[in-house]
Amino acid sequence: MSVTDELLANNAAYAEQFSGPLPLPPAKHVAVVACMDARLDVYRILGLNEGEAHVIRNAGGVVTEDEIRSLAISQRLLGTREIILIHHTDCGMLTFTDDQFKRSIQDELGIKPSWAAEAFPDLDEDVRQSIKRIRDNPFVPVKDSVRGFVFDVATGKLNEVV
Amino acid sequence: MSVTDELLANNAAYAEQFSGPLPLPPAKHVAVVACMDARLDVYRILGLNEGEAHVIRNAGGVVTEDEIRSLAISQRLLGTREIILIHHTDCGMLTFTDDQFKRSIQDELGIKPSWAAEAFPDLDEDVRQSIKRIRDNPFVPVKDSVRGFVFDVATGKLNEVV
Repeated sequence: MSVTDELLANNAAYAEQFSGPLPLPPAKHVAVVACMDARLDVYRILGLNEGEAHVIRNAGGVVTEDEIRSLAISQRLLGTREIILIHHTDCGMLTFTDDQFKRSIQDELGIKPSWAAEAFPDLDEDVRQSIKRIRDNPFVPVKDSVRGFVFDVATGKLNEVV
Repeated sequence: MSVTDELLANNAAYAEQFSGPLPLPPAKHVAVVACMDARLDVYRILGLNEGEAHVIRNAGGVVTEDEIRSLAISQRLLGTREIILIHHTDCGMLTFTDDQFKRSIQDELGIKPSWAAEAFPDLDEDVRQSIKRIRDNPFVPVKDSVRGFVFDVATGKLNEVV
């Protein structure tokens, strides 16, 4: 049995307890952008219930064009007004460079990705970079509350980057 | 108090109960790509524990360049081998078109995004589209298990798209 099949069996149990449906727009009007890291259970970390916040995630929790797209849709069509950015300690993105990653792919496949891998050497600096990318973008309209944090995978605590 | 401050108070309670740290690589070697929709608590839907799977999310749960970037890092550097795609019923992406969304931005700001909004009129078709984008991409190496689902927000059930 694949892991996917195992998780589908879990879903059958989840569906048995399920009470829905909830409304589409996030009840707390918040969008979270976090790293894809397996240790970040964003709903538990922030005490979110289903239906309360958009959750956007990728490698690093960085802000690229696709996060701008998601945030623009989140704010313009579904009424979110606060943004929470979450990076975390012990992140894989600290362990390589774009040049290394892209060279290893080029050496293996003969093709180099035209996109940036978005690796970074410093967590706080990259959180500030992500905040700036949002602040400088015209398509995300509401910027009154754009705050960035580093989740500590040893303590479970969010530490704000200022 | 902002919602962000309220969620930070929740995090303090979470950290009090926290037992960590867990290892970096996902224990179940799975990456999930799901919509950012607030009703999708991916860990609960799939019965995932912290540390088990990468979770990538955006507006629609579509596969764009940033999801390829995240999946490439997930598989090449952190050893995931199965991919689960999750769209869902009552999705906001069914309620508009790229042309409408971009025109409304252009009318308001005078600038049109150069990116696609990735709206779609048919859930199953878009799940298949996302699977195909992964299958056709050279940078995601492991494609033995790439399966797509529509989460029913009324029942909590994942229905596979074939």
